Amino acid sequence: MTQSNQWYRSTLADCMPELVATARGDLKATLAVINVKLVNVISGEILPGMSIAIRDARIAYVGKDISHTIDENTIVVDAQGKYAAPGLLDGHCHIESTQLTVTEFAKAVLPLGTTGGFFDAHEISNVMGLRGLRFMLEEARSTPLAAYMQVASCVPSTHPGLETTGAFIGPEEVAEALRWGPDMIGLGEVMNFPGVVYGDDRMIREIQETLRAGKYADGHFTWNSDDWRLPVYAASGISGDHECVTKEDVIERIRLGMYAKMRQGSAWHDVAETIKAHTEDGIDTRRMMLVTDDRSSESLLREGHINFVVRHAIAQGVKPVTAFQMATINTAERFGVSRDIGSITPGSCADIILLDGNLSDVDVVMTIAAGQVVAKNGQMTATWTGYQIPEEAFKTVHIGRQLVEDDFKIVAPIADGVIGAKAIEVVENHVDTREQNTIVKVENHHVNLNDSDNLCKMAVFERHGINGGHALGILMGVGLKIPAAIAMTVAHDSHNLTVIGNNDVLMAKAGNMAVDMQGGVVMVTEEETTVFPLPVGGLMSPEPFEKVALQSEAISQALLKAGCTLNNVFMTLSLLCLVVIPEIRLSDKGLVRISADGIEIIPLFNEVVENQ
Amino acid sequence: MTQSNQWYRSTLADCMPELVATARGDLKATLAVINVKLVNVISGEILPGMSIAIRDARIAYVGKDISHTIDENTIVVDAQGKYAAPGLLDGHCHIESTQLTVTEFAKAVLPLGTTGGFFDAHEISNVMGLRGLRFMLEEARSTPLAAYMQVASCVPSTHPGLETTGAFIGPEEVAEALRWGPDMIGLGEVMNFPGVVYGDDRMIREIQETLRAGKYADGHFTWNSDDWRLPVYAASGISGDHECVTKEDVIERIRLGMYAKMRQGSAWHDVAETIKAHTEDGIDTRRMMLVTDDRSSESLLREGHINFVVRHAIAQGVKPVTAFQMATINTAERFGVSRDIGSITPGSCADIILLDGNLSDVDVVMTIAAGQVVAKNGQMTATWTGYQIPEEAFKTVHIGRQLVEDDFKIVAPIADGVIGAKAIEVVENHVDTREQNTIVKVENHHVNLNDSDNLCKMAVFERHGINGGHALGILMGVGLKIPAAIAMTVAHDSHNLTVIGNNDVLMAKAGNMAVDMQGGVVMVTEEETTVFPLPVGGLMSPEPFEKVALQSEAISQALLKAGCTLNNVFMTLSLLCLVVIPEIRLSDKGLVRISADGIEIIPLFNEVVENQ
Repeated sequence: MTQSNQWYRSTLADCMPELVATARGDLKATLAVINVKLVNVISGEILPGMSIAIRDARIAYVGKDISHTIDENTIVVDAQGKYAAPGLLDGHCHIESTQLTVTEFAKAVLPLGTTGGFFDAHEISNVMGLRGLRFMLEEARSTPLAAYMQVASCVPSTHPGLETTGAFIGPEEVAEALRWGPDMIGLGEVMNFPGVVYGDDRMIREIQETLRAGKYADGHFTWNSDDWRLPVYAASGISGDHECVTKEDVIERIRLGMYAKMRQGSAWHDVAETIKAHTEDGIDTRRMMLVTDDRSSESLLREGHINFVVRHAIAQGVKPVTAFQMATINTAERFGVSRDIGSITPGSCADIILLDGNLSDVDVVMTIAAGQVVAKNGQMTATWTGYQIPEEAFKTVHIGRQLVEDDFKIVAPIADGVIGAKAIEVVENHVDTREQNTIVKVENHHVNLNDSDNLCKMAVFERHGINGGHALGILMGVGLKIPAAIAMTVAHDSHNLTVIGNNDVLMAKAGNMAVDMQGGVVMVTEEETTVFPLPVGGLMSPEPFEKVALQSEAISQALLKAGCTLNNVFMTLSLLCLVVIPEIRLSDKGLVRISADGIEIIPLFNEVVENQ
Repeated sequence: MTQSNQWYRSTLADCMPELVATARGDLKATLAVINVKLVNVISGEILPGMSIAIRDARIAYVGKDISHTIDENTIVVDAQGKYAAPGLLDGHCHIESTQLTVTEFAKAVLPLGTTGGFFDAHEISNVMGLRGLRFMLEEARSTPLAAYMQVASCVPSTHPGLETTGAFIGPEEVAEALRWGPDMIGLGEVMNFPGVVYGDDRMIREIQETLRAGKYADGHFTWNSDDWRLPVYAASGISGDHECVTKEDVIERIRLGMYAKMRQGSAWHDVAETIKAHTEDGIDTRRMMLVTDDRSSESLLREGHINFVVRHAIAQGVKPVTAFQMATINTAERFGVSRDIGSITPGSCADIILLDGNLSDVDVVMTIAAGQVVAKNGQMTATWTGYQIPEEAFKTVHIGRQLVEDDFKIVAPIADGVIGAKAIEVVENHVDTREQNTIVKVENHHVNLNDSDNLCKMAVFERHGINGGHALGILMGVGLKIPAAIAMTVAHDSHNLTVIGNNDVLMAKAGNMAVDMQGGVVMVTEEETTVFPLPVGGLMSPEPFEKVALQSEAISQALLKAGCTLNNVFMTLSLLCLVVIPEIRLSDKGLVRISADGIEIIPLFNEVVENQ
């Protein structure tokens, strides 16, 4: 979006005289798309026989006859009756979750019809603070996307007593980042919702800075929809929330004036339930949005991006034009940018997709972004000079020592016998975990899980070079059947080095390899080692989209081979440190319980059972 | 809205910590409204058994149980199951058209349920320029209304060659006024639509200044909805338009991304037709708004304000909650202030109305504005210190001489006989006029209309002390049956002294009386004289609402007695100078034709017919 590159989107104020002159025919269109069935998301209609005249990055004219805007220099695309819809918008997305750089993310999603989004770079921000956000913003500006960034509200997600992050973002940092430009759209999901409700000074002031800047604060509230504190949260000025799992979650948020974001990520599949707020309960749809939150590169490759989510919503019984509204104009209105994006109307940015076949198939065959054809038939056609990611982003894993077998031994408060302990149960396709009481065997002061089919270990090592601490916990439901370990520097949101496994030697090996490659994922069994290097902040790969997707799949395959059958397993495991989502998590500070009473560190062991 | 008075609406950013503390019960509500049927315009539902906790000017909590927010200092209103809806908003209104000061306007409409509006003070601006706008803004800030003002775009409405105004507003003035505060919401209706389409520098730059300020430009496009230039107009960034007379006018604007404002003024009744865009064609309603544009004090007294328009829309078959949306949340969203007004949600301003009986009756029995009960059962209960209108506003009628009989003689290009002339035909209940060719008698070089039942004279005298010019024209359809004249300094938009009549002596008398009282309306027959003094800018009365309404009615009655049966006659006549509405008008510069070809001065006489 910067003036210096080919994707520059002039402000409407600046280019309006030229736009009006083009519309009346005194200047000519640079690009014309003729003979479309227009998906008009403002009126809620499909209009056949329409054409669109574009001048540079914006739409000058929409009508049945645009011949007066065309001359011999105009590039004319004859759509031959295909549908034209506004480019799709992702209303809540963490690009880092794809493990792609912004550049590769853009190349992955543009052919799928995504032309813009609202990105909360809170993963890189946990590692590098505002410097991380800044480089991702700069990189986003170098792409054809209408990319709006949020400043992460929760770095750390609650406070340093619960987890160690590589940076701290508070009200001053929020205010600073929101001054970087109009594409800094607001405050990223305020996950410390108990903090907001109970008046945590940092949270309150971050929201105040956002409102003062005239920008938008996003929410993340995971207590029940009928919890009396949801209206308290809403009173703070937080006006959108994607933590909707049931239709009631959607309905209650909308009733309180929020935008309800219905999420179809890789590791959670909420839309089929949440969309019932519309299909069953008839709630006004204008504040419903379709979002992805976190989708892996594999999901992008195999299923798609927002195009997939729109198609899925239609399959649940939503009228196609309504589903498109939920991924275009509703999203743009939520962030106050509907004058720029979200519809095919005069003055708007020329972000347009052409779709073949039935509209409900969401079969994107051409993507126009910033007034230029950038993708055809699923392939990028546009090229641009890549962005140079700063060197410091490649040096973010600071463990400072070799991990050894002993680092993974869980010391019990008894010498031998059995003891009650808390296990974190993984739930497939859901971001929540379950707190389970279990009985584990102790030998020579150490927990021994060898006979516990369904349990394995989890270790989290602080990796930002802050304090060198680590913590150990017990997982249930991962399903490893052979000796195996997976280490990863992707571990939301503090992204400490997390190692999961059932063999201390393999866990140490995997952890050390992940450190040696300055971040990424390493899956180790006695037979094989599979690596997925993520040297950019320990989160992202600089490699091309397709290669990253294959590397990511290789990790999934390796896990499957080891017995772990969970859907989207890597993403599910990488969320096990996220101390703001119920019910129980492990951070570098220990076991953390998230409940209606708040967020607290709890002991791993329940009570001492008599030594037998 | 200023901090210095009792109606101060703190920004959400400023009061949010207190609001959240009230919502969780640590602080207590100042006002609580319990047991309502909530008209939820966000979700589109009616929710029984709801209660609302208010802290100062904003809503802290909405839910079934708000007992934790109430203590012995909380004022509790038990609504006993009445409906609670957001205070009604008028999305396009010229306060001056009521002939009331802003203070009296507020007192008139608050009991009717109007708690906010978007006001284009372009009448006073034509007389006094930005100084007029400024005092009306200051006055508005002294009332309980959530009043947002626009800076007039068209002073003069097109250019000084077509009419003489008391002031000039251009891009620099627009930019200046938009810096006065967040309640300066944007650019008033851009009536010079041909200027926008054909690139008039002043119009283009005024819109640019508005967009650069991040504010909203309103439109006024009177060519047909299928005119190819409507999309050109839309490309300028003008995003709302109230010149909708047919359903197609509404549909085409919405398709182009505009908000379509459906108008029920005193002198035009558009909603029954325009609402068919929804009731017949099923167009998405979110960009439909109900507005009044111009309503007289009589209409306020006899019919109501936006409450009347909502009731009328419901009577056309609109679902009640949808009609309320069109006068609340849609309007707030159009102007980017839905975080502040337009819904009953936590964080919003506490502008709430209670309604008795059936919702479709729109029977407002209590109005809460800025968190305080201001009206009950149709009567204001709140009081406040009045605003002192600056002295200069009372000295705006500058004719500088006595008018005499000769001023009203229309000189023909022939000495005697008959000649073809253009007459302006008045159309009841419509703002448009018709251009009619007629034949008039000429005696001794002067037009004689004595035998022309359906014709009378119209004279416009420049009254701002600029050039002392005047022009004469012929009206058709006014219907005066006895010798009579009406003079008025209200004559949209340049508000020159306009005299209509069929007797030159009476016309001079009426004109002089209007001048002598520094503005107003004077109706004179051979038997009676009726006066309606409007000394504030020659447009408004400083008297209380009810008195003004009666004075206004007296003028209507006097006109009726003289044979003029037109509905809302005074408003209809006062629009006869408005040189941007088809088909033909009279200004101080002469006869003006407004057509698809543009706006131009045309000769009064068609052609010379042989002297008989």
